[in-house]
Amino acid sequence: MPTLVLLRHGQSQWNLENRFTGWWDVDLTDKGVAEARAAGVAMAAAGIDFDMSFTSLQTRAIRTLGIALHAMGQMWVPVIKDWHLNERHYGGLTGLDKAETAAKHGEAQVLEWRRSFDVPPPPLETGSPFDLSTDRRYAGIAIPVAESLKDTIARVLPYFKAEIAPQLKAGKRVIIAAHGNSLRALVKHLSGVSDDDIVHEEIPTGQPMVYDLADDLTAISRRYI
Amino acid sequence: MPTLVLLRHGQSQWNLENRFTGWWDVDLTDKGVAEARAAGVAMAAAGIDFDMSFTSLQTRAIRTLGIALHAMGQMWVPVIKDWHLNERHYGGLTGLDKAETAAKHGEAQVLEWRRSFDVPPPPLETGSPFDLSTDRRYAGIAIPVAESLKDTIARVLPYFKAEIAPQLKAGKRVIIAAHGNSLRALVKHLSGVSDDDIVHEEIPTGQPMVYDLADDLTAISRRYI
Repeated sequence: MPTLVLLRHGQSQWNLENRFTGWWDVDLTDKGVAEARAAGVAMAAAGIDFDMSFTSLQTRAIRTLGIALHAMGQMWVPVIKDWHLNERHYGGLTGLDKAETAAKHGEAQVLEWRRSFDVPPPPLETGSPFDLSTDRRYAGIAIPVAESLKDTIARVLPYFKAEIAPQLKAGKRVIIAAHGNSLRALVKHLSGVSDDDIVHEEIPTGQPMVYDLADDLTAISRRYI
Repeated sequence: MPTLVLLRHGQSQWNLENRFTGWWDVDLTDKGVAEARAAGVAMAAAGIDFDMSFTSLQTRAIRTLGIALHAMGQMWVPVIKDWHLNERHYGGLTGLDKAETAAKHGEAQVLEWRRSFDVPPPPLETGSPFDLSTDRRYAGIAIPVAESLKDTIARVLPYFKAEIAPQLKAGKRVIIAAHGNSLRALVKHLSGVSDDDIVHEEIPTGQPMVYDLADDLTAISRRYI
């Protein structure tokens, strides 16, 4: 039976500061490191073995994966890093905390961006300190200026189907260490969650979500460990 | 100009205890972690950017690479893990410390194993606690029972030529995080060191060795940073 574990990265510095992060490359806090380690210990205790792993191009997810695999004694497992698994791009909200965002855009507007399925935030402004166009990790990639959850799904899901699903169908046991919204894209697909409901699905940091899948990759069961 | 950095893993628990390690998967000590971090800080200070990285299937090397890339802000760099870059397999010496080895085999014999180019140590004994035949990371691989340095070179060098050299020739900047003897294999090849001299080449832990290479991958210069 194919097994897929989804793992949201441990607490990042901007999770702690309640700032919109998106594609900005913020590191884990000490608590985030501890969450990643605890996730690995829990997976090892549950007897989970991996054959393959996937993560984003963002430090907080890559590091969470590495720390968890280390705690499991499975650092040798292949790791594929790809921008398609990055967090939703928060555009012009990047770097703002909730109070700043409400002051700048109004509470109602902020709620709409946070809770709507297909409304993107404003685009990243020209000259923003959070512009990633010269970051060489994204060379050759059309970096989004802002993404709705729908936009995020539109790049996560084709990647999953092309690169990860074939591994699962070949019987590989796979972990994906990624982000709140890139994982929502996968949960929506695997568990058949509606557009309205997926925006309310909160995936906790550092809690491995285990999917047992049928051979056609429909979900048989889903649980946190 | 192609750039290649060779990095021997930081101190492991068995480096500290002066025990033959080989393919046994021993973790870094706290000092080893600090060495890995310092290597990353030094490479960042020297302005080194990587496009690709390679390491063995052994935790001490994989972890050294991850810690160094993290210190450089380059965790997103692709990492390829392959058993061909593993340490020399020490066969029946695995797990023994120097005093135990001398008591069991005699000083002169130990010196020959340590200093000869082509004399392998005795094979791993049947039923040894260090038998790796059921370790799933090596599934499908003919695990050696013991290797001389010559044997180690005979698997490292073809891998380098097939998988790493093409990346360098394509202009990629590459780091290889590996082990004392798998790195000796590369230094022997790149710097044209004789069979007699290579056994005396001591590669320090956690010291990045930078090769500037000509387009045909002959060494122009070599330095530690």
